[in-house]
Order: sequence, then C-alpha cells, then structure tokens
Amino acid sequence: MKKILISNVEIVTDSPAYKKKYIGITGNKISYIGIKKPKGYEDAYQIDGTGKLAAAGMVNAHTHIAMCLLRSYADDMALMDWLQNKVWPAEAGLQKGDCYVGTQLGILEMLKSGTTAYADMYFFMDETAQASKEAGIRACLSRGLMGDKYDKNDERLKENVQLYKDWNGADDGLITVMLGPHAPYTCSKEYLKLLVDTAGELGCQLHMHLAETEQEVKNCVKNFGETPIKYADSLGILDRGCLIAHGVWVTDEEMEIMAAKKARVAHNPQSNLKLASGIAPVEKMLAKGITVGLGTDGATSNNNLDMLEEARLTAMLHKGVTYDPLCIPAATAWDMATYQGAKCLGYDKLGKLEKGWLADIVLYDMNKPHWYPRNNRMSLLVYAANANDADTTIINGKVVMEKGEVKALDAEKIYFEADRIAKRLTGK
Amino acid sequence: MKKILISNVEIVTDSPAYKKKYIGITGNKISYIGIKKPKGYEDAYQIDGTGKLAAAGMVNAHTHIAMCLLRSYADDMALMDWLQNKVWPAEAGLQKGDCYVGTQLGILEMLKSGTTAYADMYFFMDETAQASKEAGIRACLSRGLMGDKYDKNDERLKENVQLYKDWNGADDGLITVMLGPHAPYTCSKEYLKLLVDTAGELGCQLHMHLAETEQEVKNCVKNFGETPIKYADSLGILDRGCLIAHGVWVTDEEMEIMAAKKARVAHNPQSNLKLASGIAPVEKMLAKGITVGLGTDGATSNNNLDMLEEARLTAMLHKGVTYDPLCIPAATAWDMATYQGAKCLGYDKLGKLEKGWLADIVLYDMNKPHWYPRNNRMSLLVYAANANDADTTIINGKVVMEKGEVKALDAEKIYFEADRIAKRLTGK
Repeated sequence: MKKILISNVEIVTDSPAYKKKYIGITGNKISYIGIKKPKGYEDAYQIDGTGKLAAAGMVNAHTHIAMCLLRSYADDMALMDWLQNKVWPAEAGLQKGDCYVGTQLGILEMLKSGTTAYADMYFFMDETAQASKEAGIRACLSRGLMGDKYDKNDERLKENVQLYKDWNGADDGLITVMLGPHAPYTCSKEYLKLLVDTAGELGCQLHMHLAETEQEVKNCVKNFGETPIKYADSLGILDRGCLIAHGVWVTDEEMEIMAAKKARVAHNPQSNLKLASGIAPVEKMLAKGITVGLGTDGATSNNNLDMLEEARLTAMLHKGVTYDPLCIPAATAWDMATYQGAKCLGYDKLGKLEKGWLADIVLYDMNKPHWYPRNNRMSLLVYAANANDADTTIINGKVVMEKGEVKALDAEKIYFEADRIAKRLTGK
Repeated sequence: MKKILISNVEIVTDSPAYKKKYIGITGNKISYIGIKKPKGYEDAYQIDGTGKLAAAGMVNAHTHIAMCLLRSYADDMALMDWLQNKVWPAEAGLQKGDCYVGTQLGILEMLKSGTTAYADMYFFMDETAQASKEAGIRACLSRGLMGDKYDKNDERLKENVQLYKDWNGADDGLITVMLGPHAPYTCSKEYLKLLVDTAGELGCQLHMHLAETEQEVKNCVKNFGETPIKYADSLGILDRGCLIAHGVWVTDEEMEIMAAKKARVAHNPQSNLKLASGIAPVEKMLAKGITVGLGTDGATSNNNLDMLEEARLTAMLHKGVTYDPLCIPAATAWDMATYQGAKCLGYDKLGKLEKGWLADIVLYDMNKPHWYPRNNRMSLLVYAANANDADTTIINGKVVMEKGEVKALDAEKIYFEADRIAKRLTGK
C-alpha cells in the first residue's frame, strides 16, 4: 500500500507544547502520529512539515458548488427579487458541461483553502460527481428535488436515484449520495413521502433545507399545521437520517426531537447573514448534543467557499448575539468545521488527526505575519489565518495539492471556461 | 518629482465595463487615470497591472498595533478576567524596544493585506512612530491616557504632547498625532477637561473609546449623570474633533449630536462580537450622515489586522441583525473601509482613486479561483477576496510592497523577535 510520511510538523489540536511530530499514512488511513521517526516509511512519499501546522481537512457541510458560476453576479438584493430576477433565469440557461466547470472552480477554491470534503445539492450532479472524482475530493452529493406528486417516474427523482446507483461509494468511497428534497415550500407532502419511501428502499439518507427563514416557518404552519422540523419528522424524514441545511428557526421542542433522532445540522452563518435569514441558535443545539457542522452555502450567497471564514464567523457571531464571550471557543468552532461536519456527511472516523482515522489532512504555512507570535495554534488557525494559508492537502491518503498547486486541475483553463460560461448565463 | 505608471489595470469602483486603465502618480498624488497611455511617464517607475485590481488602500481606523505581540495569548475569556489576569499583567512586562517590534509585525500584516493607514492608541508610541516611518505607512498616533487629576505634569499626557511635537506632520505628513483619552471609566472628569484644554492649545484632535459596552453606559450614567457621548460632548470633546472608537451603545439623540458635531466613528465589528460588547447601530449612523470608518481593534480581540474581513463582516452582520439584505451593500462597506476611514483620521483627499488625491493604492492579484467569474469586481473584493490577495502596495506615491514583498521590513527577523518578546511577556 502507498505510504506518506510527514516530518517535523506541528499539530493544531496539540496543547500546549506543540512538539514537532511525524504523521505516517498507509493507504487511506493515518497509521502513525508521534514524536519519534517511525520505521517502515523509508520508501514513503516524504513531505517536509517544517513551519507547517497539520490539521484535519475541513468539511463544507452544505453548498451548491456549481453556483460558483454565478459568483458576484447578483448581490445586495432581497431574497425573492434575487431568486426570481437573477438566480433562476441564469440557472435556466445551464447547459451540459457547465456544472462540470462550476464544480471544478469550486473544488479548486476549496482545496486551496483547507477543505477536503463537501455536501452538495444542485442539478447536473453527474458532472459534479465526475469533477469530484477527477480532483480526488470527498463529496456527498444529492440532486435538488422539487415536486408535487407521489410519482415514482418523477424525472428529478429518477436522476437522484440513478446518481445513487452510479456513484454511491464510488472512487474508493470518496463519493456518497443522498436524496435532496429541496424544502418544505417546494415539495408537496405526497412528494416528500415518496422521497422518504425511496430513500428507505435505497438505504440512503436525506439532505434538505429546513427552517431557513421565518417566512418558511409561517407558511409551513399555515399549510401543514406544523413548524418545519416537526413537519419533516411527521413524514419520517428524521428517522430516515437527515442532514438539515440551516435550521435557523427551530423551537426548543424541535431541538429535542433533532437530538433524539440524531439529525445533523449544517450551519451556514455567512449565508444566513447575507440573505438576512436570521441567526441559528447554535449554542443551544450544541448544548443539546446535536451535531452541527458548518457550510458556506452556494457562492451566490456568501460569496466564497472559504470554510475558515465560516469557522471564525461561527465563533464570533454567537459570542456577539448571546453576549457571552465564552460561547463557541476556537476549538469548538474547529470541531464543527471538521469532525462534526464529517458526521453531517455520515462519516465516523473522519475529521480528527488520529491513528486509524481517514487521512484527510491539510498543512498550513505559518510563515506569515498573522501566525506570529505562536502562543496558541488553535487560536491562530481559527481567529487569524486566512484561506490562502493552506499549503498541502491530502485526501484519503492521496496528495491532491502541494505547495499550493492542485495536481489534477488546470486552473487557467477552469478560470477561462468559468468566465465564458458566466457571460453566457448572465447575458453579458 | 518621482513618477509611477501602472498599466493595464482594472479599477474596483469602475462599473460595469472595467476597462483596462493607466494610473499615473507624480510625487505623492494621483496625477492621471485614464484609458489612454499618458505622456510624460516615459521615465516613471513602471508597474504592470495586468490581471490586477486597483483600489484605494484601506484605513484601519482603530487599533492598538503593538498588541500583535499578544496575538493568540488569551482568547475566549470574559472581558475583566481577560484584562486583569492576562492582558494587563503581560503588558506590565513591556520593555523598551518591544513595541517597535510589535508595530513592525502589525505593519507587515497590514501592508500585505491591503491596509495603508491606521489610527493607533497605545504606549511607547515613539517606537510605533519610528517603525511606521521606516516602513512608510500612514499612521495617526495617540498615547493611551488614563488619569484622575487636572495636572499638566501628568506623565502620560506629557508623553502624548511630546509625541505631537516630535511627530505630528512628520515623514512628509504620513504621521499625525492626536491625544488619546482612553475611556470615560479610566479618566476622571477633571482629567478629560485637562485633555480637551491641552488639545485646544496644541490644535489637535482626540481619539477615544466611547460607548463600547452596556456596562460602560450604566456606569457613566451612575457616575456622571449622562450617557457616554453626551458626557463627552458636555466636556467639549466632540467640539474639539473626536475619533470615537466603537460607539456601540449610542442613543438616537446621541447620534444626532454626533452628526451635528461631525464626530467620526471607528466601527470594530469583529472585536465587538469577540468580546460580546454588542452590535453598533451602524446603518442608523450612516443614515444620519455620520462618518463611520472600520477598525480591527487590537490583535488580542480579533485576532488579526485583516481589514477585508472587517469590511465583509460589516456588510454581512448588519444585513443579518436588521433583517434587511439591502443593508450596507458591498460598495458602502468598501467606502467605510477606505474613504470614511481616511476621514476618521482627518484626511480630506484620501481613500478614493481620483486625480489629485493622495496616492495610497493597492493592487490585488485576481489570478485565484475566488476571483472568478468576474461579474462584479466590487462584490468580489468585499465578499470573496482574502487578506493574501494584495500584491502591490503604494503609499503616498511610494511603492512599499511589490509582489508580496514588503521592501523596508525584514520579515524573518520580525517573526523571530516577536516570538522571543511574546515568550518573555507571557512567561513561557
């Protein structure tokens, strides 16, 4: 099996000594972490970790990656004006091959900024799967599903089912598939029942926008007599296993249900602020034992896929709105960006640098002014680092980026194609 | 006079064509902006702006730069625990020469991330002035003043007065000096009167923390019968000309006074969140015509000096807390980070790329995934860029950084010294 040895590296979760260590990787797993140079790695691929900080790769627990194609196209607008007059008309122009490029652009950005896995919901998901496989990134994919009937021949659902059959577990397990019911306001009750039944037949989980805005809650109560989480639960969605995107407007009672049913939440603080959706009660969710990962949402409502920014914003924002400077310390925000994110995607031993765990590792270059002085590496990473500091990225035991160069992607070509497609989509 | 010519560059405030332009600089001012290559720049220092975005340098309107020495030393703590048990004991160990290094570290970070001017309040300000002069950054300096008597021989005040005499207008006007009354809770009424009188004699303005926390407001009302802004105004502070740091807890009546007296506010969104101080009513201040610049505050409550982050957070946070996605659009946040910041420091023609204005210019490298596609450069800069994207920095018509290399500073030496000093201060 292929081996990698990282030498003389510091590890972000160590404290307070930060001794220089060796990290050995065998196949797709971490096989050694320690101060002594391990035997058996003489022929391994050698990486010099001097001046670098090793950390688990971040997990972007909710995005629409191909929306990178619309980055900076429509900002500072009200939600429905933005969707109806900008996003949806532009998306209607998406052609075969566009989402492949949009996904490549997003992957390039994520790999360069320390993210090694993501959960996605969009269209043309075959192209997203293909681009992910080629780049070697970990991806949990779902086809955005909207519908009104219990119809097993629904085209969107057929696509999602085929995606599951073609890609779930593909590429050495790097790619997994969920069903992607879009939201309570775009799926009828019958359609949601169909999705739960189909997910049961496949044995797969669901990834769904829930409780994102106050208006959604009001409409859900009006139309279905329940708040979104209780409504989703009444349909068996939580029992099936659900990654809840947003969860901004949730009641205490709903949080109890979420905890009991092991629902996982993708918190998207920047998107929630930018679209003025509200601020999720994350500190309460964590206190109740709910798994809360972090996501960027799509680049149209962010406008980047920078997970360090989300981790920092999570730590800062909830301190501010709870008036509690002890709320969500750096290490908690980091745990959400890594381990809890991995749990959102359904992983068990991913998101920590521990022997036997999956080898998704990022080395950050600390030779920059904002990394000095080095009192506390965790604080430096969460509160001071930026998205260009990732130097080397390893996913599933494979080096996908080294010295800032992403090996499998041709950046110049992707930039050129992305601009060309964006011009067509936006009519410029 | 020395000349610089930047060729083939795009300008962030242009819209929507983003034609490639030439920017000519003569002495310390912008002397040409246009599409045609100007005559008279044949012997100028030539900068190729291809693939770069030109923007006015950002102004960090409130920081304590030498606190970079304590970066990541004490985080996720309650304010008084943090100050009494960590910050103040560490600061008590500051020796001659320490703040010179701390300032160099902060300047290095600011120049590398697009900031060309800053307003500071701290100790050992001679060292901060000297380091600023050597690096060629624009600085508005004040000595933090705390006291209880009307005593013209107060040591701190004597230092601030001497700083004014030695440095105000120095280095071709790059360095200016204000008096720095720390806060209503660390200065007696008599001492504040002394500072207003002294500022009047010198003809200088004041830089003061005001209305940062709710507790400060309560104590101010209890001790002086007025809320902080009204109290400061009653002592003549606003009439003297005041840069107000924070202004989180201000009433509508106080905002009217601030607008009428042309007080300028340095809004520090990240610090206010991290210390759980509150969220300033920035959108109201802007609506009333108050100048609001942006600041990072010290690196201990942030933990970097990244002004792009503050601009982005300003745009995002106030959308979120006002539930208005149109609140503080990208261009407004950018105006606050540049032009309004320059007004905070007392400048008139600084903070915009216009002919005849001071030549503080940053070129951002757009050859990165988060800068694609290029639908709107202003959105890309404020919502997607990061602190490592600044490539070239010009201040007062002088190139202080090119291709990411800060010309006058030895980064390796500064990192080494900063770590050495930090270890001594924190007893490690």
